[in-house]
Amino acid sequence: MKHLICLLFSLCGLGMMTKAQHQSKIAIAVHGGAGTISKANMTPELEKEYTDKLDEAVSAGYAVLQKGGTALEAVATAIEILENSPLFNAGKGAVLTNEGTVELDASVMDGKTLSAGAVAGVTTIKNPILAAIAVMQKSPHVMMTGRGAETFAQQQGLEIVPNSYFLEQHRYEQWKKLNSGDNPEKGHLSPKNPPSEDTSIKDEKFGTVGCVALDQYGNLAAGTSTGGMMNKRFGRIGDSPIIGAGTYANNQTCAVSATGHGEYFIRAVAAYDIAALMAYKKMPLKKAAEEVVMKKLVKMGGQGGVIAIDRKGNIAMPFNSQGMYRACIYPDGRKYIAIYKE
Amino acid sequence: MKHLICLLFSLCGLGMMTKAQHQSKIAIAVHGGAGTISKANMTPELEKEYTDKLDEAVSAGYAVLQKGGTALEAVATAIEILENSPLFNAGKGAVLTNEGTVELDASVMDGKTLSAGAVAGVTTIKNPILAAIAVMQKSPHVMMTGRGAETFAQQQGLEIVPNSYFLEQHRYEQWKKLNSGDNPEKGHLSPKNPPSEDTSIKDEKFGTVGCVALDQYGNLAAGTSTGGMMNKRFGRIGDSPIIGAGTYANNQTCAVSATGHGEYFIRAVAAYDIAALMAYKKMPLKKAAEEVVMKKLVKMGGQGGVIAIDRKGNIAMPFNSQGMYRACIYPDGRKYIAIYKE
Repeated sequence: MKHLICLLFSLCGLGMMTKAQHQSKIAIAVHGGAGTISKANMTPELEKEYTDKLDEAVSAGYAVLQKGGTALEAVATAIEILENSPLFNAGKGAVLTNEGTVELDASVMDGKTLSAGAVAGVTTIKNPILAAIAVMQKSPHVMMTGRGAETFAQQQGLEIVPNSYFLEQHRYEQWKKLNSGDNPEKGHLSPKNPPSEDTSIKDEKFGTVGCVALDQYGNLAAGTSTGGMMNKRFGRIGDSPIIGAGTYANNQTCAVSATGHGEYFIRAVAAYDIAALMAYKKMPLKKAAEEVVMKKLVKMGGQGGVIAIDRKGNIAMPFNSQGMYRACIYPDGRKYIAIYKE
Repeated sequence: MKHLICLLFSLCGLGMMTKAQHQSKIAIAVHGGAGTISKANMTPELEKEYTDKLDEAVSAGYAVLQKGGTALEAVATAIEILENSPLFNAGKGAVLTNEGTVELDASVMDGKTLSAGAVAGVTTIKNPILAAIAVMQKSPHVMMTGRGAETFAQQQGLEIVPNSYFLEQHRYEQWKKLNSGDNPEKGHLSPKNPPSEDTSIKDEKFGTVGCVALDQYGNLAAGTSTGGMMNKRFGRIGDSPIIGAGTYANNQTCAVSATGHGEYFIRAVAAYDIAALMAYKKMPLKKAAEEVVMKKLVKMGGQGGVIAIDRKGNIAMPFNSQGMYRACIYPDGRKYIAIYKE
């Protein structure tokens, strides 16, 4: 009898757990940057390359969630794929600084614990998103920069590569064009002389990658990774490694990853503002994300977009630029991949 | 007759301007850090040194406002004085990194334009707050780091000093104690091995300086400057140079400068959260500041405080630590200077 009761309790417990797991929705979204993605610079082949890679990243992240992995693990998996692809402005194939090198930024936030990690201005860490996670999990800090961050990453056993690993020929061509003898903007970035209006170069300001996810335990996470702004100088850092600006996650509201003209996203505290509108004005996710991206940022002059997810698996991906590389898998399993406006 | 009308118009205009100037309130607050400021480590003489310097900074900033200067100019004036004083953990007399050098962070925000500037991890700029202002006013960027930021500051004509300028004997003694052969914490900062519990050293985590001001034109500004955390490693950056975390200003809500355990202030997006509570929940300044500092941060385990000001000249200076070096001048001209809890 005692054994029977035990068995009943066990079955009951097992049943409850299975039910809870099935009740809990999983969902994920990724972006590969927003900007003036002009069809003129796009071929059907290149478009396919982009959508295939977005598909690979979002599907790999989703597979992690399906297997019972955490939102944080899904974010790491998806972003690592995008960082390793030369198509996006993060990790391999990132844009070049004014000095012709690659400097990378990344951040991550766990919506369950509100813990966060970020690295900025790193030049030798193969996957900056993994370094951001290590900062979050293995140090008492949130943000590490430059060589110090690289030393930490190395101590944590992360893969270190020479800076040349990140360099791709097409980025070098863009950089050379921007810094050629007859370019009046050569090497200059000032309020009167902002980055190039040449769309083939301007695009490159906006190739940041990011991921937001909801796992079966009801937890949210967000991550962002970038090479920053083409031809950047002076150790410039954008919104991507800034918690609250480029990345934010809180189980009570949402997880957000931003992409766009970083300076505006910092000044607008864009990612956290979406969460604040949900928490304090009781706005639903979609309305809050659109309020920030389509109204506030537009008013300030800040181009870009966000991907955002809430605890129910609602997904919002607004952008105020020509296009945004984006993909998501909804709680019902539907997959969506797009580049331009609908 | 024509001349008389002109004269009347002129007098009328002058009268209106004078009235407008008198109607518009001015007010200012400064802080020199919050933490476990223990009476055991304090002498009456040292206490007087602190209050005198706070008085000097807040009075100098107020004088700028009285002469028709902007909130931004008042913030720069007050913070420069605090940076130049070896009493606080900013500029001269800042704490040492694990390597025995000084690395400084600062940020500033203009509540009228929502423009912002920040420098992080700089080692040779005499007054980091002036570099943050230069980034805001003379570049298209918000944040610059390390050597790049120093190159920019030098190009802008700011004063460059050797790193040894910042070094003070008492900081070196603290550093030596922390890194002595028999200290089990030597050189280690990890989640299991956080910075020292020795109060004479622990204090030094919290010596950040800051200023918020309201000028007669109704504009707000905020600035923050710090040497960061004693014995910090890996290019660690706290909340001080992070817009939204350590510094925020918006004429529609408030100007805030934070001080405390930076990692928590970043994760809480503390400075902007106060503004969001005012904007979205219509909380008055004091209630919003207390909600964040005395409830949210306490719940997370984050020690520290903020100074905050709104467009009406209301000032809030809540802190959840033992003490906070603070001073303010209210719109009615009353001056307040304090270190411990009331």
